[in-house]
Amino acid sequence: METPKLSVLPYKGTRDFFPDEMRARSRFFDSVRRTLQKECFEEYGGPMLESLDLYAAKSGEELAKEQTYHFEDRGGRQLAIRPEMTPTVARMVAEKIGELNFPLRWYSFPNMYRYERPQRGRLREFWQLNVDVFGCDGVEADFDCIKAAVDILTDMGADASMFTVHINNRRFFNDVLASLTGFDAASAKKVSKIVDHKGKVSREVYEKELTDLGLDAASIQKIDALYDMDVGTATALCPGSAGATELGDLFDLLDKTGLAPFCTFDFGIVRGLDYYTGTVFEVFDNAPDNNRAMFGGGRYDNLVGLFVNNAKVSGVGFGMGDVTLENFISTHGLLQAAEQKTARVLVARFADVPLSEYVALCDAFRRVGVPCSVYLGSKKFGKQIDYAVRGGYTHVAIMGGDELAAGQVKLKDLATREETVRPRDRAADDLC
Amino acid sequence: METPKLSVLPYKGTRDFFPDEMRARSRFFDSVRRTLQKECFEEYGGPMLESLDLYAAKSGEELAKEQTYHFEDRGGRQLAIRPEMTPTVARMVAEKIGELNFPLRWYSFPNMYRYERPQRGRLREFWQLNVDVFGCDGVEADFDCIKAAVDILTDMGADASMFTVHINNRRFFNDVLASLTGFDAASAKKVSKIVDHKGKVSREVYEKELTDLGLDAASIQKIDALYDMDVGTATALCPGSAGATELGDLFDLLDKTGLAPFCTFDFGIVRGLDYYTGTVFEVFDNAPDNNRAMFGGGRYDNLVGLFVNNAKVSGVGFGMGDVTLENFISTHGLLQAAEQKTARVLVARFADVPLSEYVALCDAFRRVGVPCSVYLGSKKFGKQIDYAVRGGYTHVAIMGGDELAAGQVKLKDLATREETVRPRDRAADDLC
Repeated sequence: METPKLSVLPYKGTRDFFPDEMRARSRFFDSVRRTLQKECFEEYGGPMLESLDLYAAKSGEELAKEQTYHFEDRGGRQLAIRPEMTPTVARMVAEKIGELNFPLRWYSFPNMYRYERPQRGRLREFWQLNVDVFGCDGVEADFDCIKAAVDILTDMGADASMFTVHINNRRFFNDVLASLTGFDAASAKKVSKIVDHKGKVSREVYEKELTDLGLDAASIQKIDALYDMDVGTATALCPGSAGATELGDLFDLLDKTGLAPFCTFDFGIVRGLDYYTGTVFEVFDNAPDNNRAMFGGGRYDNLVGLFVNNAKVSGVGFGMGDVTLENFISTHGLLQAAEQKTARVLVARFADVPLSEYVALCDAFRRVGVPCSVYLGSKKFGKQIDYAVRGGYTHVAIMGGDELAAGQVKLKDLATREETVRPRDRAADDLC
Repeated sequence: METPKLSVLPYKGTRDFFPDEMRARSRFFDSVRRTLQKECFEEYGGPMLESLDLYAAKSGEELAKEQTYHFEDRGGRQLAIRPEMTPTVARMVAEKIGELNFPLRWYSFPNMYRYERPQRGRLREFWQLNVDVFGCDGVEADFDCIKAAVDILTDMGADASMFTVHINNRRFFNDVLASLTGFDAASAKKVSKIVDHKGKVSREVYEKELTDLGLDAASIQKIDALYDMDVGTATALCPGSAGATELGDLFDLLDKTGLAPFCTFDFGIVRGLDYYTGTVFEVFDNAPDNNRAMFGGGRYDNLVGLFVNNAKVSGVGFGMGDVTLENFISTHGLLQAAEQKTARVLVARFADVPLSEYVALCDAFRRVGVPCSVYLGSKKFGKQIDYAVRGGYTHVAIMGGDELAAGQVKLKDLATREETVRPRDRAADDLC
């Protein structure tokens, strides 16, 4: 053990969660789980290591290798630490496709790793909530996911001023381009790539890219107009098309169920990945200094086909990273109410009372549901009080030799500093 | 995407958790967390990837490399997927040693990987509960950990017939050997290795190993007698020694606090790892066909010293793997009571009622705390009922055009098949 001293810091891009941080994190995770359980989503889990093939099949081998921690095991298998959950859940659905009770409404909230340069909102180790509906083609499944996203945020105390769900539809994107420019789906896909990175390039580059695809100034103007349109105006450009109908139905449902104030049509949302086929959405933080997409999702209809021939299981869902969401929660001061203190008692120790008496007193608090522990050690009473204050205890139970003999306990409230004397068998009264 | 079809199976030694399995798992994890929170243990978390050095410093480089998934990142850092939590928590304690509120009473329940041949009770991916107390030298911290272990099991419904905590003390081990054989601590350590693997070798090999250390037949007989002794008889062999006092104090406390029926002195428990310094214990399953150690722990006093010069932070704790514990839970039929059904409602859909009405009805159930979802899709009523039954719903809410017009809802209890008609605004009555 006489090695040089080791570093005390966590690996680059990962975090230690000391109890204070872990408590904040648990409040957040517990809130998400409560919302989803209330909505009858079912939790699943999968392994942290998967075959690298799984990611290569979805994103291409080069990208998969670049973005993941991957290595070969001693049996020559190429493995990766999961960078996302979608391939795992698609594999699981394929694994039991004949037995599952469709439509599935599933969620998971696992840890994962992405190999990238750590920066604000992006770390190498993160947790990602995944919510998905499998086996329902209708727009009600898209709605179900968007509602879950909204409810997760509002159940934390967020309101419509704090975030907005920007919604588009890939089918509508194709339909409206066909109607405005005559482009087919293949050309529309090329346009979607340009729309997707519009915010990252200059206006000149953007226009040149569209011109290179054969669009004239008039067509580019028509596309420009789309960015500012509401859903009614936009869908009127290709009325009756499959995409316009789907988008219209979704917004109609959002409107009638009170979700309209949280949602807006945004032609600029296409989401880069090729596998999206219908509704796509991104949830934006409305805070002026953090106005950007926090998370998103959409409909993808063929992932299970990677595993099973002729399997068509439609899917729609979203993924939500913990780092971005924790920024949102702290920016908007959410989840504070949940911090309200419930009683938590430290039993102080005095040398003239046997430890077993303190253990028994402690058990009495626990039995009625009040978290309690006996002070470990033999420091002076004042130090024990300091320990209780720093440790987040709300009360200290005091039972010295005199109290023991009298069958009493003094309970000190650490907020008010008041002490009340009570019979030992009613020590927890009004705490639980 | 025209690649050959991918395997649907999880990687060797890992598990998929479909919702049924995840529910069982959550019951188990939630129960553990409830117990520890009641006892004021605080949860912490750390990264899945750590520097390989961390494990090499504790267990030697060869063993660390053999037992972990390890690899080099693109910056040339040697990393390992954590095979255990102790090095991480020791690093964290060292990281904030000047700020923390000692004694710490911490726990964590993370996923980890060990590179080994999968077999009963041992998988490559597993979760391990870690409970530790840092910064208290007294036997009350050892007691605190043992009590937590016992409470975790009894809170799941286990009783003293189902498991036993086997307890020994490394200091006592040295003291009693010194008293019986005159061996010093270094020789006692060699004996401890032989005692540790006694169950895995023949009697002949065992005796030869002890003889090779210089013990005669009489000494071996004296050691033999220790295996069957109770704690009083054993400690009387070296009365007043530090180890005997510590062991005696611990058993006295276990006795006075009602934990004696769960505990037994066992000289055969030494735990192989060199870093244990005092109390050691292992929890055995008493089931005749599974009578073996499930998990264990003990006192280790110098791990933080790997990181910080002259740091002396004593520790005592235990680690409990999920796979072994799930075997124990299912063998003894524990946690069944928690399975009792709370209401969970599926809102059935009929074509003559707008979806938004169903969403509103669903929200009304959720608002009063009853998990509820709207059926996704447009199948016939009978199919929707089948879906509800398979999906673990307890009730189906029925609101066709007639009920809608009358402001009513029919609630079908899936257990009794009874239907009750109620006003729509009191649909959730007696469910919450």
